[in-house]
Amino acid sequence: MQLERIRHAGLHEKVMSAEQASEFIKDGMTVGMSGFTRAGEAKAVPKALAERVKEHPLKINLMTGASLGNDLDKILTESGSLARRMPFQVDTTLRKAINNGDVMFIDQHLSETVEQLRNHQLKLPDIAIIEAIAITEEGHIVPTTSVGNSASFSIFAKQVIVEINTSHKPELEGLHDIYIPSYRPTRTPVPLVKVDDRIGSTAIPIPPEKIAAIVFTSQNDSYSTVGAPDEDTAAIAKHLVTFLENEVAEKRLAPNLGPLQAGIGNIANAVMMGLLDSDFTDLTMYSEVLQDSTFDLIDAGKMTFASGCSVILSERMNSKVFDNLEHYKDKLILRPQEISNHPEIVRRLGIIAINTALEFDIYGNVNSTHVCGTRMMNGIGGSGDFARNANMAIFVTKSIAKDGAISSVVPMASHVDHNEHDVDILVTEQGLADLRGLAPRERAVQIIKHCVHPDYRNQMLDYFERACARGGHTPHLLDEAFSWHINLEKNGTMKLL
Amino acid sequence: MQLERIRHAGLHEKVMSAEQASEFIKDGMTVGMSGFTRAGEAKAVPKALAERVKEHPLKINLMTGASLGNDLDKILTESGSLARRMPFQVDTTLRKAINNGDVMFIDQHLSETVEQLRNHQLKLPDIAIIEAIAITEEGHIVPTTSVGNSASFSIFAKQVIVEINTSHKPELEGLHDIYIPSYRPTRTPVPLVKVDDRIGSTAIPIPPEKIAAIVFTSQNDSYSTVGAPDEDTAAIAKHLVTFLENEVAEKRLAPNLGPLQAGIGNIANAVMMGLLDSDFTDLTMYSEVLQDSTFDLIDAGKMTFASGCSVILSERMNSKVFDNLEHYKDKLILRPQEISNHPEIVRRLGIIAINTALEFDIYGNVNSTHVCGTRMMNGIGGSGDFARNANMAIFVTKSIAKDGAISSVVPMASHVDHNEHDVDILVTEQGLADLRGLAPRERAVQIIKHCVHPDYRNQMLDYFERACARGGHTPHLLDEAFSWHINLEKNGTMKLL
Repeated sequence: MQLERIRHAGLHEKVMSAEQASEFIKDGMTVGMSGFTRAGEAKAVPKALAERVKEHPLKINLMTGASLGNDLDKILTESGSLARRMPFQVDTTLRKAINNGDVMFIDQHLSETVEQLRNHQLKLPDIAIIEAIAITEEGHIVPTTSVGNSASFSIFAKQVIVEINTSHKPELEGLHDIYIPSYRPTRTPVPLVKVDDRIGSTAIPIPPEKIAAIVFTSQNDSYSTVGAPDEDTAAIAKHLVTFLENEVAEKRLAPNLGPLQAGIGNIANAVMMGLLDSDFTDLTMYSEVLQDSTFDLIDAGKMTFASGCSVILSERMNSKVFDNLEHYKDKLILRPQEISNHPEIVRRLGIIAINTALEFDIYGNVNSTHVCGTRMMNGIGGSGDFARNANMAIFVTKSIAKDGAISSVVPMASHVDHNEHDVDILVTEQGLADLRGLAPRERAVQIIKHCVHPDYRNQMLDYFERACARGGHTPHLLDEAFSWHINLEKNGTMKLL
Repeated sequence: MQLERIRHAGLHEKVMSAEQASEFIKDGMTVGMSGFTRAGEAKAVPKALAERVKEHPLKINLMTGASLGNDLDKILTESGSLARRMPFQVDTTLRKAINNGDVMFIDQHLSETVEQLRNHQLKLPDIAIIEAIAITEEGHIVPTTSVGNSASFSIFAKQVIVEINTSHKPELEGLHDIYIPSYRPTRTPVPLVKVDDRIGSTAIPIPPEKIAAIVFTSQNDSYSTVGAPDEDTAAIAKHLVTFLENEVAEKRLAPNLGPLQAGIGNIANAVMMGLLDSDFTDLTMYSEVLQDSTFDLIDAGKMTFASGCSVILSERMNSKVFDNLEHYKDKLILRPQEISNHPEIVRRLGIIAINTALEFDIYGNVNSTHVCGTRMMNGIGGSGDFARNANMAIFVTKSIAKDGAISSVVPMASHVDHNEHDVDILVTEQGLADLRGLAPRERAVQIIKHCVHPDYRNQMLDYFERACARGGHTPHLLDEAFSWHINLEKNGTMKLL
């Protein structure tokens, strides 16, 4: 039964236990692993590795697509086996190790990791560990619920460990579209001009002799923990939908808006849910991650096609989608993250990019990563791939956090991931600021008026007016620019005492 | 003689004086003007306009390719006719007006202005003023020493004023390659796969009836003021050439490096001059601006082809190139800035991007625009178009300025135009820091060791060590992060007193 999933008979002899397979991983190796937004990560071998290092300590450099599910980053961190980690993570334990300087974390634009590998600017993975539905007759690997960097990791690594996960239905095969850009100087355009274009193969083409081990597992992906919209996220969605309706009315956007990208998490998911109550039809997505909202929109007949790089769903939606895959299969494609996030495609298709900000400032600079400019949250992810090249770069956040102790709008962002040149639209539950074509002083007026929470508005106006009095294209008082953050660290609140 | 330059006979009747033509410009209009890096700007009409507003005050929104020569930004600013200006400038008088808040300046990625116009995210120009060598039989406009945004401005504007400049030789015709991306949702790949590919037409195709006025002028472009390399810029060049030689030896770069982009100004020019003394051959450029160094490299047989968007030369080089154009014409193309800076092409070709930083910080964030985070210098220009998508993003600067009162390397950049995710290599005359694949704490060690001036090294180490003691992925002391800048503003030096 299991062996049917290995259609290249010559590979049957490579089946072994996760413990045995984990012994291919040696001290100092760079390991490329499948997994993107907690979907489709290799599960059994990294767990076996974490067990093994208790007896035989070793350190690895771990690169993945993005975040891992099933607490793997926590387990690996606690095992002490992580020396370096890239390009993204969302785990509390790993985050602590990163902020302590115990794990070196390289926080990258998600489209760029394999490009840097291809150019030998990063060390190539010694070994790849890839979750699969099946191995084809040719010995090619069929990925599961994410493609991530799995294709290029498999191609670059000297050895590949395949984890065939029987909890994923075989019907997933055919969903993926594996395209790898050609080498320079003879690289040609990525031949994708519509969200539903298929330009590659349905499996990762590698020589079968590179497959060093095959492990069977049946552990599920983690479920998404995305919550239902609350009052604030619903308000954010409403502001944005109203704005998009007006853009269509003014003929700045097509009636179906153009392809949508939405970041991961509660707010971006709520914004997409907001489109359920809109009059928009024929919506499409060209995004990294497909969440519950994507399938709610398909079910409602609002969305006709979704291209992504991974699927992560709540428990409810997971069974609905994967038990009825025939219903969705012709409306879905999963691509390598290099292609789902490719600047060439993002610009060509004219994507509307919706991502979550940790904080932003009155001039439109966005911090997506660092609490108080120092402590890493998750990483920039794909937001930069999309925002820089999108038709419209939208950032959303609640105007306050921690019961109002934190204002998400600050005089100066304490870390800048998306700068004033890249940010078009900012939305909080308070309202929406349209920054297009505005100079910094004009942007500040819009942001203070529409986005800042009333509890912080006077305080912000006071800063802005005193900064303007001192002058400059982007008026700031450098000796006060971070005073809100410093106040938070010292007194637990950004409010003036 | 002059009329020969208007090959569409029906347009001869549109010839008039600059004064008459300037009357087409009305109060409140958005004006799109040719001109990029002080090359190929319309000259007579804006000057006539500045005269006219003395009697008849009016305000315009002026958009160009980039900076204007012949003191036009100064003249227009002093005339009080500039309400808004985009997307770039380099003029002292205009800069002052921008920093006083008198002129609203929209500082943009240079590839994005016409894309935003095309999507109606910016107001379309009412009128375009375009410098030309000639008007073709079809009534199409042949640009001069820059293409900039001239093609799209002419296409979008309701009326076009053409300034035929007889100081430019007619032989310039044929140098340009005008390609305009198609409209979404049916946009196709930009079909450029090599630096010397011709994909468009040699003139700007507009219906001749849109040409409202034709003015003759014979005023030269301004000459470049780029200086010869000094000891420091030569040292920067040497560090970079050594690094590039090693990249080739390690097979991370092809023997000809791949297409080069270099920003405008003394340091980038000096770096390109440094390649003259290298062993590299078959070099190519895919850049915005072509300066003296490009032609020195062609003359030396080191460079085989240069694609740009404008040519600005010193007096010496100007006559050498333009009096011997037949010698260079098959090695040059001038393209619209949307194409010279296009993210799709920058990524496809694998460009080595070399741009100048105003300051950078110990974690690799670069400030290209704002003095002490507030006062605009010039603008981001094309540096962001290139750095985000390049094969390698290199930033160069002298480690100190103002006789050592300013350190160009600071604890925290006071404005971020290029963030840690985009910056690969930093070079000062002190040395070169290779940031690829490094976490922030590791980058800081490299930058402090290789780039910081010895006068500031201990001061920087002290900051970094105390910040690390407090912790975080990107350790900072928010209450001291700008202390160097504040010290400079208060005491005239960044040195601890």
